[in-house]
Amino acid sequence: MPEIEPATGGPEEPPSAHRGLTVSTGLAGLSLDAMASVAYGPEAIVLVLAAAGSAGLGLTLPVTLAIVVLLAVLIASYRQVIAAFPDGGGAYAVAKKHLGRRTSLVAAASLIVDYVLNVAVSIAAGVAALTSAFPALLPYTMWICLVVLVGITALNLAGIRESARAFMAPTVVFVAGILVVIVAGLLRSAPEVVETGAAVATESRTIGILLLLKAFSSGCAALTGVEAIANAVPSFERPKVRRAQRAEVALGVLLGIMLIGLATLIGKFSVHPIDGTTVLSQLTEAALGHGIAYYVVQFATVALLALAANTSYGGLPTLTKILADDNCLPHRFAVATPRQVYRYGVLALGVCAAVLLVASGGNMNALVPLFAIGVFVGFTIAQVGMVRHWLLAGVGGWRLALNGFGAVLTFGAAVVTTAMKFTAGAWLIVLVLPLLVLAMERVRRTYGRIDTRRGIGCVPAQPQATGTVIVVPVSEVSELSREALSAALSLGHDVVAVHVCLPGENTTLFTKAWAAWHPEVPLEMIDAGDCTVGGPVARFVRDNFDGRRKVVLIAEVDPPTGWDRVLPSHRSDELERQLRRLPDTVVCHLRVQAA
Amino acid sequence: MPEIEPATGGPEEPPSAHRGLTVSTGLAGLSLDAMASVAYGPEAIVLVLAAAGSAGLGLTLPVTLAIVVLLAVLIASYRQVIAAFPDGGGAYAVAKKHLGRRTSLVAAASLIVDYVLNVAVSIAAGVAALTSAFPALLPYTMWICLVVLVGITALNLAGIRESARAFMAPTVVFVAGILVVIVAGLLRSAPEVVETGAAVATESRTIGILLLLKAFSSGCAALTGVEAIANAVPSFERPKVRRAQRAEVALGVLLGIMLIGLATLIGKFSVHPIDGTTVLSQLTEAALGHGIAYYVVQFATVALLALAANTSYGGLPTLTKILADDNCLPHRFAVATPRQVYRYGVLALGVCAAVLLVASGGNMNALVPLFAIGVFVGFTIAQVGMVRHWLLAGVGGWRLALNGFGAVLTFGAAVVTTAMKFTAGAWLIVLVLPLLVLAMERVRRTYGRIDTRRGIGCVPAQPQATGTVIVVPVSEVSELSREALSAALSLGHDVVAVHVCLPGENTTLFTKAWAAWHPEVPLEMIDAGDCTVGGPVARFVRDNFDGRRKVVLIAEVDPPTGWDRVLPSHRSDELERQLRRLPDTVVCHLRVQAA
Repeated sequence: MPEIEPATGGPEEPPSAHRGLTVSTGLAGLSLDAMASVAYGPEAIVLVLAAAGSAGLGLTLPVTLAIVVLLAVLIASYRQVIAAFPDGGGAYAVAKKHLGRRTSLVAAASLIVDYVLNVAVSIAAGVAALTSAFPALLPYTMWICLVVLVGITALNLAGIRESARAFMAPTVVFVAGILVVIVAGLLRSAPEVVETGAAVATESRTIGILLLLKAFSSGCAALTGVEAIANAVPSFERPKVRRAQRAEVALGVLLGIMLIGLATLIGKFSVHPIDGTTVLSQLTEAALGHGIAYYVVQFATVALLALAANTSYGGLPTLTKILADDNCLPHRFAVATPRQVYRYGVLALGVCAAVLLVASGGNMNALVPLFAIGVFVGFTIAQVGMVRHWLLAGVGGWRLALNGFGAVLTFGAAVVTTAMKFTAGAWLIVLVLPLLVLAMERVRRTYGRIDTRRGIGCVPAQPQATGTVIVVPVSEVSELSREALSAALSLGHDVVAVHVCLPGENTTLFTKAWAAWHPEVPLEMIDAGDCTVGGPVARFVRDNFDGRRKVVLIAEVDPPTGWDRVLPSHRSDELERQLRRLPDTVVCHLRVQAA
Repeated sequence: MPEIEPATGGPEEPPSAHRGLTVSTGLAGLSLDAMASVAYGPEAIVLVLAAAGSAGLGLTLPVTLAIVVLLAVLIASYRQVIAAFPDGGGAYAVAKKHLGRRTSLVAAASLIVDYVLNVAVSIAAGVAALTSAFPALLPYTMWICLVVLVGITALNLAGIRESARAFMAPTVVFVAGILVVIVAGLLRSAPEVVETGAAVATESRTIGILLLLKAFSSGCAALTGVEAIANAVPSFERPKVRRAQRAEVALGVLLGIMLIGLATLIGKFSVHPIDGTTVLSQLTEAALGHGIAYYVVQFATVALLALAANTSYGGLPTLTKILADDNCLPHRFAVATPRQVYRYGVLALGVCAAVLLVASGGNMNALVPLFAIGVFVGFTIAQVGMVRHWLLAGVGGWRLALNGFGAVLTFGAAVVTTAMKFTAGAWLIVLVLPLLVLAMERVRRTYGRIDTRRGIGCVPAQPQATGTVIVVPVSEVSELSREALSAALSLGHDVVAVHVCLPGENTTLFTKAWAAWHPEVPLEMIDAGDCTVGGPVARFVRDNFDGRRKVVLIAEVDPPTGWDRVLPSHRSDELERQLRRLPDTVVCHLRVQAA
């Protein structure tokens, strides 16, 4: 997952008092979601190829090699991004600088989608690793996913974060575990344990170019997160650029080795997809047996995936904060709690991920196909931005060519992924991305109109008093009415009381009581056409008092607790709703507390 | 389902211009949910007795006979209620008159629960009849239930209602169909079609008194709705009491015949519960074969159950309206649309039924156990109220004895049902009933305090003006600030502008702009401890201006559409939230429209 403006938050941010990231802590802090994607990437390939039987599964390695080639190009491209943008910055920042507002919003939308998907996929994959180890938990998959999600969301709402250093141990255990699985598996002539579950039923298919493209686009999910280091260069220790570049290359090498190694094992042990057991779990069993080592690898996988989900909680609220500051999202997203938590961003992330988990039933393989599109859209925009960067800087040659090649390749991958996965759920992303962009543009436009109306920047004319009439809706003769009229008289001499006669009401009761009281305020009785008071009062205020400033004073009893607030206010709500539309009208609320 | 105040609405209300109900239209309009309960009552018995195998199922008839005896007592009791309360009135009305407020709230709560359950159970049973006829629809049970629910709710929100006459045809077809099934089944020596689905797995159990009590309490669901006629006496044609009594007896006879007939057939064809096929569907197949007649009966069942669900939409919103008028529910429940729809009541009913349907997965047999408790609580309260009625009227003898006997019997049934069904979901009702009563009492208390504070009934003192200070929070120097200060100066001479300095803000920018403008209004700069403006402004207003009336004027730009309203207002929201707690403070909003 890309990290936006690493200096402002996020789990990978080192406390500024501490030293910056080294190559290894950077790798742990920034790349754990890239690493974590080996837990679902290879499985996504196997699931597709299984449709063509054993012959299909034999193609796992070639497909993986193609993906690793793409990985190599991406890593080389991002080494350049690191050199060119030593201040960091995600696809959004690059696009905002080089490709204009609209493109930057597309980048932002794709980032938002990916942050949300990263949470859902990581949690689903982590729980899949757990249920593979403990099949008894399988029926509760979705509920476990939701409990984990609520837990992570709650921790982040409370502002509890870990430093990059804390991520070292699980990352090391996980990578070491996967490497041990690969080595042990390669040394072993026959699998230690063969999983005997029922194979996932798939329609049999011949091997064709379509199937290979499908497998390729599924496996591309393994590439998510390789851009995170490039986004967070300022977090590294000096020399920042060199260290970041080394970490990027190390990530590429490690990820490549793990992917190729696992693909080789899949071919060697002819692993086929089994319902309820992940491919990684099968490989671990085959290589290490069903002993303590198996559980260590599974638990490391679960832990790493939970941390991978957690990284989105550093990234998305920071991104939405930047977008809110840029007027592209409601300003609420920019409001931080005293513990520097952007509550709306965290909550929005949790809710969206929950919807995805519930809709997919917590099934990781249903979510993975949604993933790659947004990632490749982001990749492509970043690469195109880099091409423009080199052109503007007058730098040509291999740098330009490499980013150009990267852009073409990732754009191709985006198209292939979308086409291949369209019916498997990618349509949702194809729908959501433009909607998000449109929504953000609309928000921006509205804020623009509001700012125009506020008229900031010029020295305004002097404020001046005008004649004022104060209208007080009165529903009964009571102590509350007295307080309302007192407040109105304190605001001006020209006070009018208004009583709305509801259908079926006996108005003589009211007029008698008013006559008995006879405050020195004129009373207007107006007829309500229906059972509402808001409309008649608004019409009365609108149609009278031309040229004067109109003030409507609404008195109400405020119940002591928030819970009770639904109780008395429906008349005030009606008035408020109707009156706020009137031009040049001030609506005042006098709220007295209930005893 | 009981109908409250039939004269104010509900499907069984005859348009007042038309003639009243006859025995037959009354039976159709008021009793279709009682009739409809034969679709799930007998099945509930069979489900319990199946635990004891064929021997257990042989006891279906005796258990049904016990239920029919209870039915006879109820019918006899309600004949008396009709005579004693010729103005109608449900358990709530009876209890309010004779048993005090608390008891009447218990009755109201049990009615609310039953209205909601009636919708959920009727829809689930109707969809079960549908999926029995078309097993291909079985996987979509819950979704079909929700579609039906949304449809019925939408029709009622739009204010579209049917007269009692429209209910005649489906009721006649349904009752005739059931009777034909019974007669044909009794004449046939062997079942025409034997359902071959897998029997529902149940742990084997010996026949004991517990099992019989359980079967009895399950079957009591068939008694729901027998009180509806007694609640709607004024809707009948003259002589109202005689016609209503005849309709009540006719209902009892019809319901008794159907229950006994179906129970006999269940024994004769040794029907056992099958997943995905209702008992009624099995009986129809066994008696009439799987031909056109079968589909006619199934469709009549579906139609009748949909109408039965619809009756709650006449009853519950009327009940909640009465409760709101009695200050026991928020007054919003008493607000009618121009088409006389109590929108909040209809929506609340739809939402609660949707929750039940989703939670049960649309499974009628999971919902039926919740049903009987509320019904028997209502029955018992009505009977006890009648006993008190006779005692107060000085009438003793057999009338008193009959209602007393009915009260004891229904109270016993309530206890048995609760105990037997506690773990099967009745705990939910045991939890919800008192919570509802407590909530309604709390609402009542709060309205009481609000009314006390309003001080209605006495002639208040004369309203008087006091010295006023007007505080205007200003975040920037802009056209909007000018308008805010102009409005403030129109309201009084003593105006103070307040600027909250947020952390990290460069205040010199603001003070320079202010100096350049220099409006003739004093400016106070206050420091915000955190990132909020609400708290500091509220503290400033509270701690200054002793003895004067305080008015805070908030200016904001109102976006053109409702959708955009989430955008700009978080600062105003903050101010509003903090300021509404201050005593004697008027909060004014000047809202200008965005271009």
